[in-house]
Amino acid sequence: MRRVIIDTDTAGDDTIALLTALHHFKVEGVTITGGNVEFQQEVENALYTIQVFQPNYKVPVYKGHERSILSAGKDSHRTVEDVHGKDGMGDSFFEKASQRPEAEHAVDFIVRTVKASPGEIELLAIAPLTNIAMAIKKDPSIVKDIPHIYIMGGTNNSLGNITAAAEYNFWVDPEAARIVLHAGIPITMVGWDMCTKYSVMTDEDHQEIASLGTSRSDFFMDINQVVMRFNPSIHKINGTTHPDTLLVAVAAHEELMVEASSYYVDIEIKGELTRGYCFVDMNNRSGKAPNVRVCEAVDRRAFKDKLIDVLSSGS
Amino acid sequence: MRRVIIDTDTAGDDTIALLTALHHFKVEGVTITGGNVEFQQEVENALYTIQVFQPNYKVPVYKGHERSILSAGKDSHRTVEDVHGKDGMGDSFFEKASQRPEAEHAVDFIVRTVKASPGEIELLAIAPLTNIAMAIKKDPSIVKDIPHIYIMGGTNNSLGNITAAAEYNFWVDPEAARIVLHAGIPITMVGWDMCTKYSVMTDEDHQEIASLGTSRSDFFMDINQVVMRFNPSIHKINGTTHPDTLLVAVAAHEELMVEASSYYVDIEIKGELTRGYCFVDMNNRSGKAPNVRVCEAVDRRAFKDKLIDVLSSGS
Amino acid sequence: MRRVIIDTDTAGDDTIALLTALHHFKVEGVTITGGNVEFQQEVENALYTIQVFQPNYKVPVYKGHERSILSAGKDSHRTVEDVHGKDGMGDSFFEKASQRPEAEHAVDFIVRTVKASPGEIELLAIAPLTNIAMAIKKDPSIVKDIPHIYIMGGTNNSLGNITAAAEYNFWVDPEAARIVLHAGIPITMVGWDMCTKYSVMTDEDHQEIASLGTSRSDFFMDINQVVMRFNPSIHKINGTTHPDTLLVAVAAHEELMVEASSYYVDIEIKGELTRGYCFVDMNNRSGKAPNVRVCEAVDRRAFKDKLIDVLSSGS
Amino acid sequence: MRRVIIDTDTAGDDTIALLTALHHFKVEGVTITGGNVEFQQEVENALYTIQVFQPNYKVPVYKGHERSILSAGKDSHRTVEDVHGKDGMGDSFFEKASQRPEAEHAVDFIVRTVKASPGEIELLAIAPLTNIAMAIKKDPSIVKDIPHIYIMGGTNNSLGNITAAAEYNFWVDPEAARIVLHAGIPITMVGWDMCTKYSVMTDEDHQEIASLGTSRSDFFMDINQVVMRFNPSIHKINGTTHPDTLLVAVAAHEELMVEASSYYVDIEIKGELTRGYCFVDMNNRSGKAPNVRVCEAVDRRAFKDKLIDVLSSGS
Ligand SMILES: [Ca+2]
Ligand SMILES: [Ca+2]
Ligand SMILES: [Ca+2]
Ligand SMILES: [Ca+2]
Repeated sequence: MRRVIIDTDTAGDDTIALLTALHHFKVEGVTITGGNVEFQQEVENALYTIQVFQPNYKVPVYKGHERSILSAGKDSHRTVEDVHGKDGMGDSFFEKASQRPEAEHAVDFIVRTVKASPGEIELLAIAPLTNIAMAIKKDPSIVKDIPHIYIMGGTNNSLGNITAAAEYNFWVDPEAARIVLHAGIPITMVGWDMCTKYSVMTDEDHQEIASLGTSRSDFFMDINQVVMRFNPSIHKINGTTHPDTLLVAVAAHEELMVEASSYYVDIEIKGELTRGYCFVDMNNRSGKAPNVRVCEAVDRRAFKDKLIDVLSSGS
Repeated sequence: MRRVIIDTDTAGDDTIALLTALHHFKVEGVTITGGNVEFQQEVENALYTIQVFQPNYKVPVYKGHERSILSAGKDSHRTVEDVHGKDGMGDSFFEKASQRPEAEHAVDFIVRTVKASPGEIELLAIAPLTNIAMAIKKDPSIVKDIPHIYIMGGTNNSLGNITAAAEYNFWVDPEAARIVLHAGIPITMVGWDMCTKYSVMTDEDHQEIASLGTSRSDFFMDINQVVMRFNPSIHKINGTTHPDTLLVAVAAHEELMVEASSYYVDIEIKGELTRGYCFVDMNNRSGKAPNVRVCEAVDRRAFKDKLIDVLSSGS
Repeated sequence: MRRVIIDTDTAGDDTIALLTALHHFKVEGVTITGGNVEFQQEVENALYTIQVFQPNYKVPVYKGHERSILSAGKDSHRTVEDVHGKDGMGDSFFEKASQRPEAEHAVDFIVRTVKASPGEIELLAIAPLTNIAMAIKKDPSIVKDIPHIYIMGGTNNSLGNITAAAEYNFWVDPEAARIVLHAGIPITMVGWDMCTKYSVMTDEDHQEIASLGTSRSDFFMDINQVVMRFNPSIHKINGTTHPDTLLVAVAAHEELMVEASSYYVDIEIKGELTRGYCFVDMNNRSGKAPNVRVCEAVDRRAFKDKLIDVLSSGS
Repeated sequence: MRRVIIDTDTAGDDTIALLTALHHFKVEGVTITGGNVEFQQEVENALYTIQVFQPNYKVPVYKGHERSILSAGKDSHRTVEDVHGKDGMGDSFFEKASQRPEAEHAVDFIVRTVKASPGEIELLAIAPLTNIAMAIKKDPSIVKDIPHIYIMGGTNNSLGNITAAAEYNFWVDPEAARIVLHAGIPITMVGWDMCTKYSVMTDEDHQEIASLGTSRSDFFMDINQVVMRFNPSIHKINGTTHPDTLLVAVAAHEELMVEASSYYVDIEIKGELTRGYCFVDMNNRSGKAPNVRVCEAVDRRAFKDKLIDVLSSGS
């Protein structure tokens, strides 16, 4: 079984992505980074999701950076309770899980785990890239020991979600994204455009999922209650969006990714309108060497099947 | 007949756009701005095109700004002889037209003409927006006297042509674009994405055009000789692209534009990777009021018919 | 007599500088640029000052750009009525002069006058550099025809006045400053640091000036009423500051400038804290060729004598 | 005895500063950050200096970040062997010290040490602020536990040393400087301007120091061999400069600092010419609350006496 660390700002679709990761991989640890909602809530959401995956199951959860690299003083990023609910769980307000987070810092956990098994630990990144960037900065030697990072982030010459120019994960910490993309680690990027084209679950899909009658499918329905209303009004999308789950599914089953190309990808960190803009040099006008494999099409039917597999398992 | 001024960096498709404008509008004057190729060559190209439209026909041609607003010292922008040929005319190296340019500066001509007929002169902008921006800066009172500007420029949350992030006209003079977009004049923008989706003429189309056997159709075939080879290799487009002609056709026949929405549009002038990036706030995450009507779909069949109309007319 | 054009945002010390210019030079015209106070008020202030210089004297006054090059839409710069009074004249609220401004735009006047007498017209620039930059952009051929520009602006590795990082004239229109500094015209720059070190007139100096009893000395006392209170509280300077008068005095009497060096000078146009910062490369760490002669010390005693000369003349 | 951690990019004057710190403080540890010369050489220089302080003396040395926070891929900063010699020790090429660096990362050492003795550990920062910023980011709770940071960095509205606009430490890692300055820890900043005004040791001073005949004074003479030639040619300074030693001396003897004021201080991280520019808002035009005590004058005589004290001690 492939061994992974999953880095998440657990709220909304992060939870289903985490279920998916737990289903398909040996998850060495879950690292939490600041993003979607209040940090401590994200930690609780991750712990609760592990319990949903399987009661009494334990995977260590590590707290990492609560804020982006360059946040200084009391600055913080914009959280998105409007998308995912006040608790990031569709306003479900679940009880606390019994498992508690580890004492070790997420960055130290990543470095230690990668160094202990060089070439074996893949990273699944479904949050701002602060923790992973900081791990690379703290011990640059991990670069050669990480075989692959799968990143949900950016958008490939398409509309963003937090601004027209940018996708949320890269927008929260553009500098972290830039550090990771240029580190030299093999990367697969699944952008927001893939999410809107291939991951949307409609009312009909929701009915199918609800009818599964598992605790996981109940959980899916609960945590999507807020985004279900948000998407039509803001993104003109009739359904729920599953960027993080899509990323994990692609990592688990590369064949879902029916088109992909390697491009030079970089992140804007100086612009006024374009904070976190993901520059995907599709026509290679820059002449620079490719550094990222960019997912360009997904088998939507197969993705949904994989999602159903995950949600219909368990108790 | 609607009265227009057309501002152009005459090379390649600018010529067909100019023919189209001369065909449909009363063109009060042609103003030249620095862009595609060496400035004096652009002037000659405009003069020659007027002669192609009709021998002995005269429309005054005014020389404007050769370089972008912020170019300082010996700085200049990148010209694109690789796209349009050394002469910007598909390496046709036509003889000089007998008509010569006027002495008046393009900016003064624009201001004078607009002020003389308030509310009557529309602008067709198919080049970097330097001249128009400078006219607005020199006499801001023209803003209320210009009923509409049609702008070929930018790209709507899609790949650019000169960089991944930007379309050429906005990239050459982003500050000019910014000034024009925020001036308060009603604007219709037709971006590079419309061009690649709806304006491409294939080999089959070229054969149809060549068979028209007019001097205009011969001219069309000549000036497209270089771009015909450029597009497949760089843009993966099998055919010639007609952004400027599309803009003029849309201005002449608004019904060609089968979808359009008003959005807040702005231009990045500070970024490192995103010089001239056109921010089209489709999901209005900025909350700002719309300032531009953005063309979102074109009746491609009708556009081609209009092009054929223009090319089959004349001698 | 040397022939000059003086470009001014007439308020406060601009008036004394204008008197000084009229005293020492053949002033071909006065051009007004947006800066210190409301634009139309600046125009009136210039016209009134000419009348103070000598009743019934006439020098044409040309209205130029009211706002910086990049100001777009309704944006404008910060005016400084707090420094110079609501009317920019120490709250004197003088009556309107009988002379009226010319119809020709300041930029056209500059271009026309320079081209008519190549090599003869020097420029005295005591305002944001918008008009001069726009003249250079409109007709770059004037560059070789202007023998020298004297610029009051910037600060030489010293505290600014409108922000810690920037002096007002360069801060209002940094892009204009950049265009002018790189144009290739011989330039002498007298920065805000020279003003604070060598141009301050104390209470004692004011008494000496007041005792001159001329209409010019009365005018001097009137227009300095507000800055007299502003300087001690904000700049910790006990006295009135005369940056523009110092510039004109140095232009008229180069021997006042007892130290000067040529340095590479550039303007920051991208920074967040450093808008309009004047980079004076004193230690040439950039390795770039000098483009500006920077005034580094003034004979303060001689400057005051020259000021007294001007103020004691006339009626 | 006050307890400190000293963070240094050990080369040139860092060594004398380190001797000074060892003389006056209980140094809990020496942390190394990337800066002046090749990183591993800096580590050796620190170890050697401890041995110069006293043979067989041991203070733990911790390796930290080799490169600035935002350096990505293979990017690195400019090192300054031209100032300090190829080895950063005046081309002395000393033998390796027998003490070796610790295994713990500098950032972890800082966090651990501060948390173990809240309110007791002061920081002496004489290098780019990467390590200290990263410690604050990793455990923001250390902010309230650090009583004071003394920082050598920036320049107070004066010429920089690596560019006209910036001092080396802030220029190498402007983002780190920004994080530290805004963290909320009490800070004293001694800028490059203080160094050039008050720390220069002339030939005469050098003779006095050489005549001390101690191993420390011999070391002083050795390590200053290159900077002695660099300063006159680049900075027009006739003597050796001691920014880091001045910082440590001021920390040890606050009375050396005869003038100081609290100002709002910030760092430019977006500018083109002004990377690492230190904005010291002396006239508070920003209206923002002070966050840094800025040293504005030093008792030069007393500083030299303190330096002589250190160099004349030991064997
Ligand atoms: Ca996420
Ligand atoms: Ca064009
Ligand atoms: Ca002025
Ligand atoms: Ca140092």
